[in-house]
Amino acid sequence: MSDVKSDIQIAREAKMQPIKDVLAKIDVPDESETFSPMGRHIAKINLEYLDTLKNKPDGKLILVTAITPTPAGEGKTTTSVGLSDGLNKIGKKSIVCLREPSLGPSFGMKGGAAGGGYAQVVPMEQINLHFTGDFHAITSAHNLLSALIDNHIYWGNKLNIDIRRVVWKRVMDMNDRSLRSIVVDLGGVANGYPRQDGFDITVASEIMAIFCLATDLQDLEKRIGNITIAYTRDKKAIYARDLNAQGPMTVLLKEAIRPNVTQTLENNPAIIHGGPFANIAHGCNSVIATKAGLKLSDYVVTEAGFGADLGAEKFLDIKCRKSGIKPDCVVIVATIRALKMHGGVAKDD
Amino acid sequence: MSDVKSDIQIAREAKMQPIKDVLAKIDVPDESETFSPMGRHIAKINLEYLDTLKNKPDGKLILVTAITPTPAGEGKTTTSVGLSDGLNKIGKKSIVCLREPSLGPSFGMKGGAAGGGYAQVVPMEQINLHFTGDFHAITSAHNLLSALIDNHIYWGNKLNIDIRRVVWKRVMDMNDRSLRSIVVDLGGVANGYPRQDGFDITVASEIMAIFCLATDLQDLEKRIGNITIAYTRDKKAIYARDLNAQGPMTVLLKEAIRPNVTQTLENNPAIIHGGPFANIAHGCNSVIATKAGLKLSDYVVTEAGFGADLGAEKFLDIKCRKSGIKPDCVVIVATIRALKMHGGVAKDD
Amino acid sequence: MSDVKSDIQIAREAKMQPIKDVLAKIDVPDESETFSPMGRHIAKINLEYLDTLKNKPDGKLILVTAITPTPAGEGKTTTSVGLSDGLNKIGKKSIVCLREPSLGPSFGMKGGAAGGGYAQVVPMEQINLHFTGDFHAITSAHNLLSALIDNHIYWGNKLNIDIRRVVWKRVMDMNDRSLRSIVVDLGGVANGYPRQDGFDITVASEIMAIFCLATDLQDLEKRIGNITIAYTRDKKAIYARDLNAQGPMTVLLKEAIRPNVTQTLENNPAIIHGGPFANIAHGCNSVIATKAGLKLSDYVVTEAGFGADLGAEKFLDIKCRKSGIKPDCVVIVATIRALKMHGGVAKDD
Amino acid sequence: MSDVKSDIQIAREAKMQPIKDVLAKIDVPDESETFSPMGRHIAKINLEYLDTLKNKPDGKLILVTAITPTPAGEGKTTTSVGLSDGLNKIGKKSIVCLREPSLGPSFGMKGGAAGGGYAQVVPMEQINLHFTGDFHAITSAHNLLSALIDNHIYWGNKLNIDIRRVVWKRVMDMNDRSLRSIVVDLGGVANGYPRQDGFDITVASEIMAIFCLATDLQDLEKRIGNITIAYTRDKKAIYARDLNAQGPMTVLLKEAIRPNVTQTLENNPAIIHGGPFANIAHGCNSVIATKAGLKLSDYVVTEAGFGADLGAEKFLDIKCRKSGIKPDCVVIVATIRALKMHGGVAKDD
Repeated sequence: MSDVKSDIQIAREAKMQPIKDVLAKIDVPDESETFSPMGRHIAKINLEYLDTLKNKPDGKLILVTAITPTPAGEGKTTTSVGLSDGLNKIGKKSIVCLREPSLGPSFGMKGGAAGGGYAQVVPMEQINLHFTGDFHAITSAHNLLSALIDNHIYWGNKLNIDIRRVVWKRVMDMNDRSLRSIVVDLGGVANGYPRQDGFDITVASEIMAIFCLATDLQDLEKRIGNITIAYTRDKKAIYARDLNAQGPMTVLLKEAIRPNVTQTLENNPAIIHGGPFANIAHGCNSVIATKAGLKLSDYVVTEAGFGADLGAEKFLDIKCRKSGIKPDCVVIVATIRALKMHGGVAKDD
Repeated sequence: MSDVKSDIQIAREAKMQPIKDVLAKIDVPDESETFSPMGRHIAKINLEYLDTLKNKPDGKLILVTAITPTPAGEGKTTTSVGLSDGLNKIGKKSIVCLREPSLGPSFGMKGGAAGGGYAQVVPMEQINLHFTGDFHAITSAHNLLSALIDNHIYWGNKLNIDIRRVVWKRVMDMNDRSLRSIVVDLGGVANGYPRQDGFDITVASEIMAIFCLATDLQDLEKRIGNITIAYTRDKKAIYARDLNAQGPMTVLLKEAIRPNVTQTLENNPAIIHGGPFANIAHGCNSVIATKAGLKLSDYVVTEAGFGADLGAEKFLDIKCRKSGIKPDCVVIVATIRALKMHGGVAKDD
Repeated sequence: MSDVKSDIQIAREAKMQPIKDVLAKIDVPDESETFSPMGRHIAKINLEYLDTLKNKPDGKLILVTAITPTPAGEGKTTTSVGLSDGLNKIGKKSIVCLREPSLGPSFGMKGGAAGGGYAQVVPMEQINLHFTGDFHAITSAHNLLSALIDNHIYWGNKLNIDIRRVVWKRVMDMNDRSLRSIVVDLGGVANGYPRQDGFDITVASEIMAIFCLATDLQDLEKRIGNITIAYTRDKKAIYARDLNAQGPMTVLLKEAIRPNVTQTLENNPAIIHGGPFANIAHGCNSVIATKAGLKLSDYVVTEAGFGADLGAEKFLDIKCRKSGIKPDCVVIVATIRALKMHGGVAKDD
Repeated sequence: MSDVKSDIQIAREAKMQPIKDVLAKIDVPDESETFSPMGRHIAKINLEYLDTLKNKPDGKLILVTAITPTPAGEGKTTTSVGLSDGLNKIGKKSIVCLREPSLGPSFGMKGGAAGGGYAQVVPMEQINLHFTGDFHAITSAHNLLSALIDNHIYWGNKLNIDIRRVVWKRVMDMNDRSLRSIVVDLGGVANGYPRQDGFDITVASEIMAIFCLATDLQDLEKRIGNITIAYTRDKKAIYARDLNAQGPMTVLLKEAIRPNVTQTLENNPAIIHGGPFANIAHGCNSVIATKAGLKLSDYVVTEAGFGADLGAEKFLDIKCRKSGIKPDCVVIVATIRALKMHGGVAKDD
C-alpha cells in the first residue's frame, strides 16, 4: 500500500556493525578492561576505564529540547539521533545520549523511545524490552529496600517506624493500575503488620532519579543511604542507611551503573542509560552517561524530556547544577503541528 | 586464621577464560549465529544454532541425586561440578548442567547455588545476582499476565472472570513475606475491582516450570497459552490464551530461553539455565539446556533438587517423560552427616 | 466545694412523675391504644392515636435558634426547655420537642443533649444511653440494606451493581475512626466480592434523615425505597426498592417511628424523637414529633441544630417545606461569650 | 385451603393480658420498685426487687433437652412452653425460661424462637425483632471495647498491643457474610493502624456468654474486665480491664441485665433473657433469669440448645456449675422424624 516503511521495518532491516567496531570509532579498544559485550550489538562500558580518561578535555554538549509538545510528541529523540548522525557525516566525532525506554508503556499505549524513521537507535527490540537489565536491577534494588523495611518492622521495629508513615512504596516495570493502591502484610502473624502500600512504575522510582544523578558507585551508595523511607510517630525521618540498606542495594546496581553503548542506523555510537520520567523526576539520561560521552567524543547530543519549560529547566537546574556540566548549544524542536494546536486548532484537525 | 579458603575467596581468585575459549572446547565457533556474549565470561547459545546439531548423536546423561538431605545440604552441586571436571580431566568432553539460583534466597538465609570449594561455577557473583536476566524476564512475563487479567476485568470483563477465583498470582524475585497476602485494586473507580492477591517468589512461578519443560519457543508459547488463570462464577476455567497473552509473554522470554554457558573453576563448560523450586515444581534445569548439553558433549552431569525420593522422582517422572531423555547413570550423594542425622543423632551434635 | 450542682446531680435528684401522669396533662389517657410505657418515665405514643387528633387545630410553633455558636454551645436546648417550662408555669399548655442524643459522642468528647441546670429533660441517663432503642433500630435498618446489597452481589448480581460504585455505607452508633475506611468481603469465595466500604455514625445515616422527614409509616417506606444505593458500570442508579428492601427495613422501624415522651425537671411533657446531625442532614427532631406536639398542646417549643444561618435555614427550607408546618415565633439565643468571641476575643480569654 | 393456622396467625390472634396482670399471678406487685413495663405486654424485672426474695426457697427446675435434632428442629421450645402451660393448668405455679432470639437469623433463613402452634410466647413480633433492646445493648458494649482497643493503639499504644494479635473482633446482630473478614483502619494517618478484623454475629459475642453467666451487675463488670482482648509481641495477654473498659461497658448493659417477662398464649408468665448460641457458647438463657424464675414460682421449665449431647452437657457442666443450680427433672424430646432420620431414612422422605 504505502511506500513509506514503518519504524520497526526500518529498524529490522538495519545493517548493524559489531559493537566492538562501533566502539573502535570512539577509540575504545576491545579489551575486558574497557567494556563488556551484552550480545553482539550492545556493550556496557567499564567505569574504571572511564576513570582513565578523566584528564581528557570534554567535548561540546548539545541539548535538544522542544516547544510544548502535543500528545504525539514532537520528535526530540529523532532530531537528536539525526543531528548526531549529521555531525558524524561531516566528520565530527559525535555521540547521541538518550534515555532507556520503560517496559511499562511499551506494553501500554505509548511507543518505545528509540527515535523514528531513519534516525533510530538499534537493536530496537532489545532496547525496548529488557535491554541490558538496568531497569530490572533498579526494580530489584528498590524492592529490596521495601522488603528490608517490612522485615525490620516484622522483627521488632527497633527504629519505631510508624506503619502509617512509610513513604517508600514498591515498584514494578509495568503499567499496572491494580497495584497503585494495595494493602500488604495480610494473612496473619507470620506475614507481618498490615499497611497501605502501592506500586509505582520503575521509572518513577527515587532510585532511578538517584541512579541518573550519581557520579560513581560510591556516590550512588551514599545517595541511596540518604533516602527517607519513613517517619516515626513523632515525625522523625528514618533513612535507608538506618537499615544499612545502601550496601546490598548498591551491589544490585553495580552492573547497571555502567553506561550502555549501541548504535544509530548509520552505525554511529549511541549511549542509552537511565530513564527517569520527566513529570516526576528530572527526565534525562544518567550523568555518568553524559560525562562518558563528553570524554569519548567531540560532541554529545542529548535530550531532556517534555517541553523546554519543564524538561530543559530540569536539565539545567537539576542535572547540570548537580553534575557541573553545561550545554554549549540548545536546539529547540518546533513542529507546525504543535504551533497550530497551541494556536487553537482542534486535535483531530 | 584458617588455611581453608571460603567459597567466595576461591571464586574471586578464579582464573577465568574468555567464554569464547570455553565454548571452543565444545566446538562452538565464535560467530554471531552461534552465541551472544553476556559480558566476557558468560554466553547465551542461539536456539537456531542448536537446531543445526539435531542429527548429532546425544552424549551420556548422568543424574546426580542424594539421600534425604539435612538442612545444610549434602553437596549435589559440588559433586556434579567435581564429577564433570573429573571427566574432563580424564579426557572426556563433559558439561555440567545446573539450575540458576534465585535472587530471593541470596538476600535471604540460603546461600547461592554455584557449588563449593574447588568445585564451583563462575563468575559466582553474576550468577548469584542478576546473571543474564532470565529470572527478571520470567518475572516480567508472569506479571504481564497478571496485569492483563486485571485490565480485562477493568474494561468490562467480557470473559466473566470471577474476581474471587483468579488463581494467577503475581511474582517477585525476592523473599518478601509482606507480599504473600495482599488486597489489590483499591483506591476507587479508576484503579479497578478490589480483590485478594499475593506474590509468590519467581522460582515458584508456573512460567518457570513451563520455561524449563518447553522444547522451543513455539512450544513455550503454546504451553503459556494453556495456563489456567481464573474461573467464572460457574467454575468454567479461563486460560491465558483467552486473553491472547501468550504472544507478548513469549516475546519477553525470547532471550531468556537461550541457555547460558559459564565455566567451572577448571575452565570446563557449565550450562546454567532455569530454576524451578523442587518443593513446588520439578526442580531441575531446563530441558533445552540438558538437550543442548547432550548435543555439545559426550557427557552431561546434571542434578535434581532435594533427595532422591522427591527430586530424582520428579526428574524421571516429569522432566524425562515430557522430554524423552533418560539418564544413563545415576549418582547418589550420601554424607556421613546425613546418615547420622537420619539415624537419630541430634542436629547440633 | 461548690454550691452549684452539676447537671447530672440535678438530673439524678429530679422528682419525676409517672409518665402516665405527665401524659394526662396533655389529655392523653392511659390506654393501650394511646401509648406504650417504656419504663415508668418514658412512653411511646401510638401513631393511630395521633391520627384520631387530625382534625384538632394546631398549637403555635416556636423555633429556638442561635447566633453562630462557640465550641461550648450557646444553650439552645436549655433555652427551649426553660421556655416551655415557663409557658407551662404561666398556665399555657406547652411541649418542648427535642432531638435524641447520639450514643457515639456520649462516649466520645461531647456531652449529652438533654439541656442543663434546672432546664433539663429526664431521665437523663436513659435518654443519653439506649433511650427507647430508636437509634438501634435505625442502625439495624441501615445495615440490613447493606447486607442485602452485598447479598445480592454474592448471589449473582442480577442488577449489575458496580462493586466500585456502591454508595451505601454501613453505620454504627459509635465514634469509631477505625471503621471509617475498610475493605469488606475478604476471606475467599464463601464471603463475597471484596470492596472498599466504611462505617458512618448512625446520626449521619440517610435513614435518620428520612425517618425525621417521614409523615407516617407508608411515607417512610416509600422514601426508603427511593434511596440510591449504587450505580451500574454505565452509571445507572440502583435504588433500595430494586432489592425490595423497603419492606423489611420499615418493619424494623415500626416501633421507632412512634414519638417518645419524657418530662422536664418541672414535670412538663417533652417529646424527644429523631436526631439527624445538622452538619450533614437537616438537624432537627422528627416531623412526626413536631406535628404530634402541635396537636397535643397550645405551644411547641423546638430547636434547630447549629446557628441560625445553618440550622434555622435547614429547618425552614427543608423541614417546614417538606411537612407544611411553619414557626409562629423564632427565638434567637445570643450569649455575651459568643458575641465577644466573634468580635475577636481569644477562646481562652 | 388449610384449617391449620400458621404460628404467626395464632400469635397475632393471641388474647394477651396486660403484663402487670401476668406478673400478679406470680405475686409481683405493679410498683416502680418491682418492674418496668416495656410496652403493655413486656416488663423488665428489677434486680433490686429480686434481691428481696433471696431467702425464699427455690422452685423445682425442669430441663428440656432433645435427641440429636434434624434440620427442622425437634420442638424443645414448644415442649417447654406446653409443659409450663400444663403445669399452670393443673394448678402449679410455673414459669418457662427461654432464650431471646437473634435478629440475624430472623432476617436470614431460620425462624424465630418463640415456640409454635398453641405453645408460643407472645408478643411474637416484638420478641423476634428488637424486643427490649438487650442484644443492641450487648452489641454496643462489645463494639465499645473494640473502639477502645483501636483508640488505645491510635494514641500511642502504651500497652504494646500487637496489632496482629488483637483477638477481640466486632459484632453485629445481623447475618452479614461481608463483614466476616475485613481490613480496618485504612485511609491514612488520621484513621489508625491497619489491621485484619471481622464481625461476628452478636449472639456469638463473649459478652453474650458472660451476660448469661453473671449473677449480678458487679459480677458482670468483673467478668468483662477479665476478657482477653489481645496479646503483646511477647504473647503476654492484655485484658479489657487494662483499658478500664469494664465500667462504661457495664453501664451500657445495666438495663439489659434485668430479665424480660412476657406471657405464653395461655397468659402464663415466660421469662426470655439472653441468647448465646449453643454451638459456640453454652446455649441457654441467663443465670439471672433462671434464678429469678426459681424464686418467683414453684416450677421453672427451661431448655438447652441443640441435642442432649451438646446442649444439656453445656447446661450441666457450665451453667449449673458456675451458678450452683441443678435440674430436678430432665425431659428429652424425641420425634419419630428424628429417630427415622438417624436410622438412615433420607431427609426428603
